[in-house]
Amino acid sequence: MSNAPLLSWLLTVVEAGATLAFALSGLLEAARKRLDAVGVCLVAGLAAFGGGTLRDVLLDRRPFFWVAHSEWLWALLVLCAGAMAFLRARHFAPTERAMQWPDALGLGLFSASGTQLALAQDLPGIVAVLMGVITATFGGVLRDIVCNEIPTALRDHRPYAICAFAGGWLLVVLQHAGVPEGLGLVLGAACAGGLRVLALVTGYTLPRWSPGGDAA
Amino acid sequence: MSNAPLLSWLLTVVEAGATLAFALSGLLEAARKRLDAVGVCLVAGLAAFGGGTLRDVLLDRRPFFWVAHSEWLWALLVLCAGAMAFLRARHFAPTERAMQWPDALGLGLFSASGTQLALAQDLPGIVAVLMGVITATFGGVLRDIVCNEIPTALRDHRPYAICAFAGGWLLVVLQHAGVPEGLGLVLGAACAGGLRVLALVTGYTLPRWSPGGDAA
Amino acid sequence: MSNAPLLSWLLTVVEAGATLAFALSGLLEAARKRLDAVGVCLVAGLAAFGGGTLRDVLLDRRPFFWVAHSEWLWALLVLCAGAMAFLRARHFAPTERAMQWPDALGLGLFSASGTQLALAQDLPGIVAVLMGVITATFGGVLRDIVCNEIPTALRDHRPYAICAFAGGWLLVVLQHAGVPEGLGLVLGAACAGGLRVLALVTGYTLPRWSPGGDAA
Repeated sequence: MSNAPLLSWLLTVVEAGATLAFALSGLLEAARKRLDAVGVCLVAGLAAFGGGTLRDVLLDRRPFFWVAHSEWLWALLVLCAGAMAFLRARHFAPTERAMQWPDALGLGLFSASGTQLALAQDLPGIVAVLMGVITATFGGVLRDIVCNEIPTALRDHRPYAICAFAGGWLLVVLQHAGVPEGLGLVLGAACAGGLRVLALVTGYTLPRWSPGGDAA
Repeated sequence: MSNAPLLSWLLTVVEAGATLAFALSGLLEAARKRLDAVGVCLVAGLAAFGGGTLRDVLLDRRPFFWVAHSEWLWALLVLCAGAMAFLRARHFAPTERAMQWPDALGLGLFSASGTQLALAQDLPGIVAVLMGVITATFGGVLRDIVCNEIPTALRDHRPYAICAFAGGWLLVVLQHAGVPEGLGLVLGAACAGGLRVLALVTGYTLPRWSPGGDAA
Repeated sequence: MSNAPLLSWLLTVVEAGATLAFALSGLLEAARKRLDAVGVCLVAGLAAFGGGTLRDVLLDRRPFFWVAHSEWLWALLVLCAGAMAFLRARHFAPTERAMQWPDALGLGLFSASGTQLALAQDLPGIVAVLMGVITATFGGVLRDIVCNEIPTALRDHRPYAICAFAGGWLLVVLQHAGVPEGLGLVLGAACAGGLRVLALVTGYTLPRWSPGGDAA
């Protein structure tokens, strides 16, 4: 268990950034779906806090991020209200692509913070990486299910969960190699988010695996 | 933490009432969907215990309501069996509207009990209100997902989650103002449930928020 | 709480068997849906660990099976990689029927292990049986939701959850009658799995319950 105040501060910054990024992605998707004002706040909240809350339930960490820092709930409400006013005033129509950038940012930040928090509990590397993947993907999965879409994490043939997987492993390896934890955290987040951005920019898709025959 | 036996008794009554109301709503929806007898019990059970169980996981309250009082599980089975026999005997065909009244009752009661239980753990007001909203909506969301419908909480443009939100805040404000907890509980439940009934009766719908352009 | 090493060993074997069976069912369903390699591992993992993890959250058992024995996560990855290579090499096209046999096996084993673990915490019989049903069905429900199918547990009019229910009760009754716990575990698993296989073989369907009228 690391007690370095710098690491703890860095973790909070990363967690906050990821929360905001996913809130924004939820907000844009809800706006695209033309939900009412309550629905927009709800979807933004699910996307922002869903992944971290599931991770905390699995790791038995209490209190939750949004219970210990309830000002984040207020920030979310203010963000939603402000964004709705802004979007309406500017006649800005959110597209599906607009949502992908905050989503990629949140993916990177959450996969690093989830992995780091699990490592701090002395869990094995593969479990820690899995916690990072869960943290990074579950908020987006909830956002998509609630908006009645097949989750991006599955529908998109561009790499998604595997970016979080790679970033998590980088963090685990760096930590075992004795690299300072704060640096590993930043590099892991950059790796996961960077790979996703790369996939979006290049349009690279995973090879679809087909079992041979033509069974459907 | 309040230990008043009256409050504790009142909370149990409210919780039991909400559980029964949601069980009934699940039963009616399952009947409408012509599920088999097992499916009817399953959907009624998810609707009845889903919201309270998620709240208890989030608040780390053990044992769960239905574990501490396992007679409620038996009551649910008896209720389902009785209701199925009754509906078949009377050739009563449940409509979508029939399901809305127990749903509104459960919404009011669960939002108050969820908020009260979170306040008893000294959580901040907005977190307590959110717990009330989660308790009140999650059972219904599960019921609708399992029946392959878009959840009422999102599909319905009449106010739903926001009724639970308003009732929860009333309870928080009353408690801070020094009103006896039992009275606050009853008023909060009446406010949440009453607003929902009002919305159903008047057919009031939330203004749909559109971001300007015509993007879909 | 039973401490017999034989029982503990038997429980581990049953749990491992059920996990593998569900992983296989998830793998076959993902292959049928032509997901990419990441998706196949994801769906296999959800099916394998979903039910047991929800049970452990509900029973407040830590660490989870897959955290305490993280080698199972590696085993899952190896199994998926191996199965994908095998299926591709043999041009074997998985059908929906192929998935039903590991699913039935997992149903039997998980319903017994879930019920046994709840009984070991001195929970009442009906709660223990319910835990068995949750353990046995939730992995499959997740697998089907993620693959965008209505869950087998609900869609299939052949008995499913009720087999787990029957097997769980048999285990509870045998334990109260003083039968050795290991024997009860095996008989309960055989009963639940056997009933499901019987239902699959005979094509028996539950009577659909209709409430009288023609309302839809």
